[in-house]
Amino acid sequence: MADYKQAGVDLDVHAGLIGHIRALAATTSRPGVIGGVGLFAGTFALGDGPGAPVLVASTDSVGTKVLLAAECGCHEAVGRDVVVHSANDVCTSGAAPLFFLDYLAVHSLESVAVLEIVGGVAAACREVGCALIGGETAQMPDLYRAGTYDLAGTMVGTVPRDRLVQPSPRPGDVVVGVPSTGLHTNGFSLVRRILTETGTDPREHADDLLRPSRLYSGDVARLLAEGATIRGMAHITGGGLPGNLDRALGANCDAVLESGSWARPPVFDWLRDLGGISEGEMRRVFNLGVGFCVIVPAAEADAVCTLVPGARRIGAVVSGAGQVWFS
Amino acid sequence: MADYKQAGVDLDVHAGLIGHIRALAATTSRPGVIGGVGLFAGTFALGDGPGAPVLVASTDSVGTKVLLAAECGCHEAVGRDVVVHSANDVCTSGAAPLFFLDYLAVHSLESVAVLEIVGGVAAACREVGCALIGGETAQMPDLYRAGTYDLAGTMVGTVPRDRLVQPSPRPGDVVVGVPSTGLHTNGFSLVRRILTETGTDPREHADDLLRPSRLYSGDVARLLAEGATIRGMAHITGGGLPGNLDRALGANCDAVLESGSWARPPVFDWLRDLGGISEGEMRRVFNLGVGFCVIVPAAEADAVCTLVPGARRIGAVVSGAGQVWFS
Repeated sequence: MADYKQAGVDLDVHAGLIGHIRALAATTSRPGVIGGVGLFAGTFALGDGPGAPVLVASTDSVGTKVLLAAECGCHEAVGRDVVVHSANDVCTSGAAPLFFLDYLAVHSLESVAVLEIVGGVAAACREVGCALIGGETAQMPDLYRAGTYDLAGTMVGTVPRDRLVQPSPRPGDVVVGVPSTGLHTNGFSLVRRILTETGTDPREHADDLLRPSRLYSGDVARLLAEGATIRGMAHITGGGLPGNLDRALGANCDAVLESGSWARPPVFDWLRDLGGISEGEMRRVFNLGVGFCVIVPAAEADAVCTLVPGARRIGAVVSGAGQVWFS
Repeated sequence: MADYKQAGVDLDVHAGLIGHIRALAATTSRPGVIGGVGLFAGTFALGDGPGAPVLVASTDSVGTKVLLAAECGCHEAVGRDVVVHSANDVCTSGAAPLFFLDYLAVHSLESVAVLEIVGGVAAACREVGCALIGGETAQMPDLYRAGTYDLAGTMVGTVPRDRLVQPSPRPGDVVVGVPSTGLHTNGFSLVRRILTETGTDPREHADDLLRPSRLYSGDVARLLAEGATIRGMAHITGGGLPGNLDRALGANCDAVLESGSWARPPVFDWLRDLGGISEGEMRRVFNLGVGFCVIVPAAEADAVCTLVPGARRIGAVVSGAGQVWFS
């Protein structure tokens, strides 16, 4: 049975390090800083007053999805994904994306479809409504093998201070799940291990494996424009529902999710069966069909589900200590 | 004779691609965008009016300096460098750094001194006066070899719109050069090629090769506070003086630099002799001792040189077309 650790990605060590990294980051605090490292995005207030702009920023990569994309020749798709991923992070604070900067590191410029990748980045920026104002394209033949590359990026958005969404769930609130399109950008080291060990050709499954991520910033903007009471949002990435929804729960609430209450794209069960992955491991590696969560008062849940295509109630908030349970 | 292209880094192909990338970025333009891709940092205005804040953002990596740092065990130094590099980019627009996000991609968390690297990042953020508000630490065992990592980051700063420094040189202006401490973060693919081909152990020369970069944001802040008339600034990185000072010249001026008018740290001649590198190649790969340039009216040059430690006149602005010459 394969798991994420055997695929070289140790989520426990990662969680331990994050605590140390947060402590280091705290030594750099200065006027303006609101949040800390560990939420979906960092926040920084420009000026005082309730309407002062808060800058919300997130850096992320598409992980080893780039390796699968390279094998399948789907470069534009990962260019789009890196922008969408950051936009989804930034909108968890209620912020509207303003601008993006990409980081593309390659073996050599000839060996990589740089313009396809950046073309995907630019197309996604237009879709998100943010400007691509900079970036870095680095040639590092000694660090990357021929044909490989790494792709990351940083999104900066803004929200007036009095509209910043911070976790404030209450027992009795509802967790609304918004569908993912599939794997999005997480768990690809495990996916590749499964494919390799079973001799499965990724190109025969490229459509399912590399399906473009869903963008949620438009859904969030619609909810905010309609005046929904949002008590927390979570972008479901590496760590799955347990490792991401917890960040929207604060210290005094848990979430109890109803297993089977949402549609699970077939790619997940296919990977589970192919690799012999346990359900627990599946839950902490993949989004399993829910790419974004919104916590709202029970009275508003139906309205929210109507406003966001595919959204449905998937669980409830109860008193607790910031953990996610499956019923 | 080795050159940068043989070391796997083709600056000509890079320059050609930048034009295409700029065109793609232009398709994403939206209200707020001031500059475009290609300057040292992207700029985005938050609101109208002369005092409205302009956000200035730069993404950069430390290149293959990470490989040399890993060989020599100097992880904290590259952590510091990635922050200093971005701060030096952002201050070319007259902006004060606000916050930073790092991107660290590793083979595995155990195999890399993550906390030393992030410790260097945090220490540099304190030195710069910016907050570390986020980042990403990605484990990608299939993309990076054991013990290797890539390190990049994004700095966001701000400047009131009426104080934004944009290139506006005039014939007769003076180019003031501010010393570098050595290689800073550029040319390391060539450096490593030279070391490998000559069987030179980098650990015996670690002090010279990995000397921490000079931070210029404090120098720039001092000049601005004293009311200096700054008509352009350049951070001298990959591309050397010809490939960076040109970005501060606009379309109608050239710069003529007086060779030998500044001190050249010994590491450059040592590398030139060891690798048999031509002077032309040295100029377009390395900073050769000038890490930052400030263009000022001739009448202010002496005052500027007094305010910035080590600064000296290194050349003059003449009518032209945006090129850099050596006399």
